[in-house]
Amino acid sequence: MTASTFQAVDPTTGLAFGDQITEMSASDVSGLISKAVATKSAFAATTPSERAAALRAIGAEIESRREKLIEVGMSETALPNGRLTGELSRTVFQLEQFAKLVESGAHYQAIIDRPNAEWVPAPRPDIRKANQALGVVGIFAASNFPFAFSVIGGDSASALAAGCPIVVKAHPSHPNTCRIMGEAVIAGLKKVGISSDTFALVEGINPEITHWIASHPDITAIGFTGSGKVGKILMDISAKREVPIPVYAEMGSLNPVFFSPKSLAEKAVDLAKAAIDSATLGSGQFCTKPGILIVPTGSEGDAFIAEIESYLATIAVAPLLNKGIADRFSSAISGLAKSSSLKTFAGKATDGGFGVTPTVFVVDWADAFKNSELLEEHFGPTTVIIRADFAKFQDVAGKLEGQLTASLHVTAGEDVAKLVEALSQLAGRVIMNGFPTAVAVTAAMQHGGQFPSSSSHTTSVGLDSIYRFLRPVAFQNFIDALLPPALQEANPLGINRITNG
Amino acid sequence: MTASTFQAVDPTTGLAFGDQITEMSASDVSGLISKAVATKSAFAATTPSERAAALRAIGAEIESRREKLIEVGMSETALPNGRLTGELSRTVFQLEQFAKLVESGAHYQAIIDRPNAEWVPAPRPDIRKANQALGVVGIFAASNFPFAFSVIGGDSASALAAGCPIVVKAHPSHPNTCRIMGEAVIAGLKKVGISSDTFALVEGINPEITHWIASHPDITAIGFTGSGKVGKILMDISAKREVPIPVYAEMGSLNPVFFSPKSLAEKAVDLAKAAIDSATLGSGQFCTKPGILIVPTGSEGDAFIAEIESYLATIAVAPLLNKGIADRFSSAISGLAKSSSLKTFAGKATDGGFGVTPTVFVVDWADAFKNSELLEEHFGPTTVIIRADFAKFQDVAGKLEGQLTASLHVTAGEDVAKLVEALSQLAGRVIMNGFPTAVAVTAAMQHGGQFPSSSSHTTSVGLDSIYRFLRPVAFQNFIDALLPPALQEANPLGINRITNG
Repeated sequence: MTASTFQAVDPTTGLAFGDQITEMSASDVSGLISKAVATKSAFAATTPSERAAALRAIGAEIESRREKLIEVGMSETALPNGRLTGELSRTVFQLEQFAKLVESGAHYQAIIDRPNAEWVPAPRPDIRKANQALGVVGIFAASNFPFAFSVIGGDSASALAAGCPIVVKAHPSHPNTCRIMGEAVIAGLKKVGISSDTFALVEGINPEITHWIASHPDITAIGFTGSGKVGKILMDISAKREVPIPVYAEMGSLNPVFFSPKSLAEKAVDLAKAAIDSATLGSGQFCTKPGILIVPTGSEGDAFIAEIESYLATIAVAPLLNKGIADRFSSAISGLAKSSSLKTFAGKATDGGFGVTPTVFVVDWADAFKNSELLEEHFGPTTVIIRADFAKFQDVAGKLEGQLTASLHVTAGEDVAKLVEALSQLAGRVIMNGFPTAVAVTAAMQHGGQFPSSSSHTTSVGLDSIYRFLRPVAFQNFIDALLPPALQEANPLGINRITNG
Repeated sequence: MTASTFQAVDPTTGLAFGDQITEMSASDVSGLISKAVATKSAFAATTPSERAAALRAIGAEIESRREKLIEVGMSETALPNGRLTGELSRTVFQLEQFAKLVESGAHYQAIIDRPNAEWVPAPRPDIRKANQALGVVGIFAASNFPFAFSVIGGDSASALAAGCPIVVKAHPSHPNTCRIMGEAVIAGLKKVGISSDTFALVEGINPEITHWIASHPDITAIGFTGSGKVGKILMDISAKREVPIPVYAEMGSLNPVFFSPKSLAEKAVDLAKAAIDSATLGSGQFCTKPGILIVPTGSEGDAFIAEIESYLATIAVAPLLNKGIADRFSSAISGLAKSSSLKTFAGKATDGGFGVTPTVFVVDWADAFKNSELLEEHFGPTTVIIRADFAKFQDVAGKLEGQLTASLHVTAGEDVAKLVEALSQLAGRVIMNGFPTAVAVTAAMQHGGQFPSSSSHTTSVGLDSIYRFLRPVAFQNFIDALLPPALQEANPLGINRITNG
């Protein structure tokens, strides 16, 4: 029997603290979804400026709770102030970015094709197409981004921007942060006169909640950021529904980083520091953490590996987010450390609570598949250095599973076109002379790559993430007044539309 | 044991004729896929003008075989000359439409975001995103469009336009038409210097072929037009793959048509004729056939139904496409005709081969769910008239499953905004004062609605169908010469790009 209440846990001590939070039941969840459904038509019909105002009002309500959010966020996640301050700013910034997008009307992708007698094999009637909101979206908050991919993070912001009511599963690793964010969302919606039922927060630690939300007939899409295991459960639930729905799951990724010998010859020390900083940022709990570094055999690679070893020895990280993550990390690391074909480097231990020791493994490419754990994602401060002949880098890329990102350090003039092509087939984002952590919220961002790193080719970061929650509908030969405003002849929304191509 | 050869069958006689076609084996299919994989990089790298030239060359090769295609097509499908002539023109026209789209470069959806120090929470690096080809696509030819949705129909044209090699399963109901089309594709590719392995034709009647193609690890997407049963098999195969792939299945649809009392009062005779013409066009074998007509109770509806009965009595249709379709049609019709809650109207019988009798059923909305077959798609010349209170039309729309299209006949000034909203949630295309057959190949077309009429919210007709076979890839901080041409600073392809929003 599931506990009827739960509490937050302090990652620095492992001890529970704060309010007893009541576990929601199946009927609680179903009731929240029904209330959200009742707001569906009205919310989808809000104008771009009303929708933008709502997103901005939510942003303002978040800002007005900044101090409290940072304080509670730190106590629940052990992430440092600087990181959470930046993440909160990003969260408000991305709401503003979506507000601007919605105001522009670009998300309607409105196309008007007027009647054309020349069409083959029959004259073309008047056809107009625009995107409209899918309906109520189920969103699962991520543990590792308590603001930017939690209650009103990227998935929620893009779904609301699309005109979809959202039912958000709070993350039990930061339940009080979720509550404050939920209050901000509701306050923002109320301020602009939108029903607060457009948003619902689902609280609990019962894994059945995932099924209650994802299998509910009124849920029309899922936004998820988390483990491959849960992502695949969501995909399976959808496939078994009477009406399958799109599941946008951003799952694990190794984010390979390839180093050419020349790039290492130029700046081995800087690159070693930057690689370890990226791999241990946020205690290594980013989906874009570089989980494997592909280093050329030979003297440049060996020197780089030596730099990594000595720099790592100086590094300690904040405790991990929760017991599950810490236990899985420790078990994977101690398992790998026993393997005879691996060399192991260690950083400084963090004691108490969910503290761990940053750890780097070194393996030759020929041995990389001997241990199935080696090429799996391990959430936490670890990365695997794979030593391979530079001439074989393309083969390495070809053997890896789909990734969110792939990075490549080269110097100008090196002939790596074939490797770049392989990396562009491997990942959604290819980075040159940089590291994959830090994902800009911008139009050109692609965060979502090839399976198993994500469930589809869409992006979960950046403006195009809105298209996950929209569907095109064409209107043929319509009486103008009955068209959606985005398609009416007088263009009452004043948006850009493509007419007759 | 599967027969090692098969033949075409004449629908007017039910007799086999023509060449013995050899059934392909699993290793034949796998060999064709491997050859296609070998062309993947080179074909994806073709420039827009090279790709457009290939599409046009294929169109020209089809035109040069027009007479033979019509002749063989008629002998295999029993569809009339006028229909096949128009469909062949559409097939060439849609290749030309995709050629123009590819030349414009719009399908790259190229976005360039330059570095921006103002970005939150960290400066934005240079990020550029463009679409690239998915890889080899498996396509399943439809029985009911021997040209426009067969070997080089809409799915194939959009995949080739995207830069994807295609492996096409020929439809065994028109195998010789498929062969001539396959020759045209290969001749067109050769003429412009593209490897003919970029295209492969798979021949056979063994249902295992579907699995061989859809489960092959090198197949990256599926394009399918056909029954809900096979569409769902394809979705299941994909879900069970190690790497699931997008399945774009356009399946069955009832395509409801709603008539207001006023629209019927104005022109019951014309609408009755148009409805029956649409329902029996191509012997009722269109995915957009109006399979249910929702007619108001009362005198206007009754007069309309009487017109349908008398017009139907004058209608005969060409034989159905194959034995399976004819047998399923006859069995469904005779089952429904036994139901006591239905009135049945009949047209004129077509004898011999796969000939059938057009049949219309009439049922009251209260009884519509008593017979589960009634609200299922029946491929062939039949439709179901549902009598319902005009005030209840919205409830009827709310009870139906997802559709490709929904149509509504009204007069100006009628208050049907809520019904229009319900129809836009039900279907991908909403038609006013028209019928759903005839699907224009144009930018604003949406052919793909809500499940179970299709497996996704994408369209399989019109220019946007190309996006099914593309995926976005972002390039961050790249050395210019290593970017794909669509994203290089000098814009060597001369395409439209969105820079800094």
